[in-house]
Amino acid sequence: MRTVSSIKELRSLLKEARPKTVGFVPTMGYLHEGHLSLVDQAKEKADVVVMSIFVNPLQFGPNEDLAKYPRDIERDRYLAASRGVDILFFPSVEEMYPEGSKTIVTVKDITDSMCGASRPGHFDGVATVVTKLFNIVQPDYAFFGMKDAQQVAVITQMVRDLNMPIEIVPCPIVREPDGLALSSRNVYLSAEEREQALVLSRSLKRAEEMVAMGERDAAALRSAIKSIIQESPLAEIDYIEIRSYPELMPMEELRGHCIVALAVRFGRTRLIDNIMLVASQEETACSVR
Amino acid sequence: MRTVSSIKELRSLLKEARPKTVGFVPTMGYLHEGHLSLVDQAKEKADVVVMSIFVNPLQFGPNEDLAKYPRDIERDRYLAASRGVDILFFPSVEEMYPEGSKTIVTVKDITDSMCGASRPGHFDGVATVVTKLFNIVQPDYAFFGMKDAQQVAVITQMVRDLNMPIEIVPCPIVREPDGLALSSRNVYLSAEEREQALVLSRSLKRAEEMVAMGERDAAALRSAIKSIIQESPLAEIDYIEIRSYPELMPMEELRGHCIVALAVRFGRTRLIDNIMLVASQEETACSVR
Repeated sequence: MRTVSSIKELRSLLKEARPKTVGFVPTMGYLHEGHLSLVDQAKEKADVVVMSIFVNPLQFGPNEDLAKYPRDIERDRYLAASRGVDILFFPSVEEMYPEGSKTIVTVKDITDSMCGASRPGHFDGVATVVTKLFNIVQPDYAFFGMKDAQQVAVITQMVRDLNMPIEIVPCPIVREPDGLALSSRNVYLSAEEREQALVLSRSLKRAEEMVAMGERDAAALRSAIKSIIQESPLAEIDYIEIRSYPELMPMEELRGHCIVALAVRFGRTRLIDNIMLVASQEETACSVR
Repeated sequence: MRTVSSIKELRSLLKEARPKTVGFVPTMGYLHEGHLSLVDQAKEKADVVVMSIFVNPLQFGPNEDLAKYPRDIERDRYLAASRGVDILFFPSVEEMYPEGSKTIVTVKDITDSMCGASRPGHFDGVATVVTKLFNIVQPDYAFFGMKDAQQVAVITQMVRDLNMPIEIVPCPIVREPDGLALSSRNVYLSAEEREQALVLSRSLKRAEEMVAMGERDAAALRSAIKSIIQESPLAEIDYIEIRSYPELMPMEELRGHCIVALAVRFGRTRLIDNIMLVASQEETACSVR
């Protein structure tokens, strides 16, 4: 595996790679099995796999965890190489945002709710850095984990709207055996918070069962989820949302492709999780994790 | 010359063209010698020349001339083919903006003044459509006329900020023998307006002479320009701006690369023109048209 931190050097490496297909896995590093599962899928679909590790300041709010976001490039480099990444792109902030950058990519409407509402400017930062990374890497395929389901919806919309010649491949959430969705931020959790954080996946599981048994009322689902989360005294709910996917329109009654999405704080750590459901009108449903 | 109006068909045509270099001339059509001079420069630099003709609704304000913007695709097709365009891309509005488009590209700061101030949202529309066209055509070079100097500054900034793998080639303003800068909008002018519109180029010429003779005071230049324009009773000044280029910062005293830029209305027709100057500190200057 080659590691490069200059855009110019990356481009000349990739020039050699053409006309092979390029699969791209953008990450913020501190890799876990969720990221590495994206690499597996990239290797299956593309000839050359590029991973980027860049903690993007533009997508963090002023009171968020940019400074303390976990980083361990040596461990990441080892994990990425072991899993078969061909090129690791690890740019500095200066390389990505030279002085005087003035351009922002905005995706409207679907960024107003959920994490977009809790984190103003977050998705502008995501859309902008992903556009930059796509222009730098020029991948044929890009792989994103569905834990950040709204991010996948935003990027898919952006790629369509801006005619980027790239296929976005959404990949399933990877979970710990006990159900907790993998996240680099899980390291922030104390043992007690880690234990109580299981209410996220447990409440989603409960919502899934209710929908499978015919429940279609969003308010009823939301209230069931809320009461499970409130069993954890450390949990502070940011949002519980039930929306169409990928349009992210609110729904009172579940119908078609839906997302049940949560954001919950444990101390200063904000965790997100979600489940995708297809609510048929015949009172049966299947999850599409 | 092939004319295509589907993005998919254009992409498959361009796939055949690789690994030749592609030069791109985006236009709104109603071609004149200014556009065709861009084709000449594209042919000099690239193997394959693509021109687009698309009157982009996104860059017109609600009270602007979108509906009556002049169009003549048969004439344009003939002129483009005669000049050596290889592929003419002539998409419909639906092809470019399918229902539900939500993504906007914004370049900050340098879009606040001049045409950006007179035409709110204009440069968002420009940046967004140019991003789309660049992703569709994937050119190596793109050619823009310096009559729209602010547009060139905005697109150059955007390409840099978003790491687009494209070289922007600014091309000189083409003028009628009497000095009027070529513009598709010149057809709107009555004979009397056409005659009086010469105050734009005449006042810029005067500013150039004053700077060559050592004038460095922006207010003095602006007032000289203003009094020449006011010789035309039909002229209504939108702006007279003297700024650094390409940063577009206002300047009281000319220094380094400057633009003197005008927007003037004649009836319902808004014309723009500009001149680039290099103001040295040794009281001499040369124009860099």
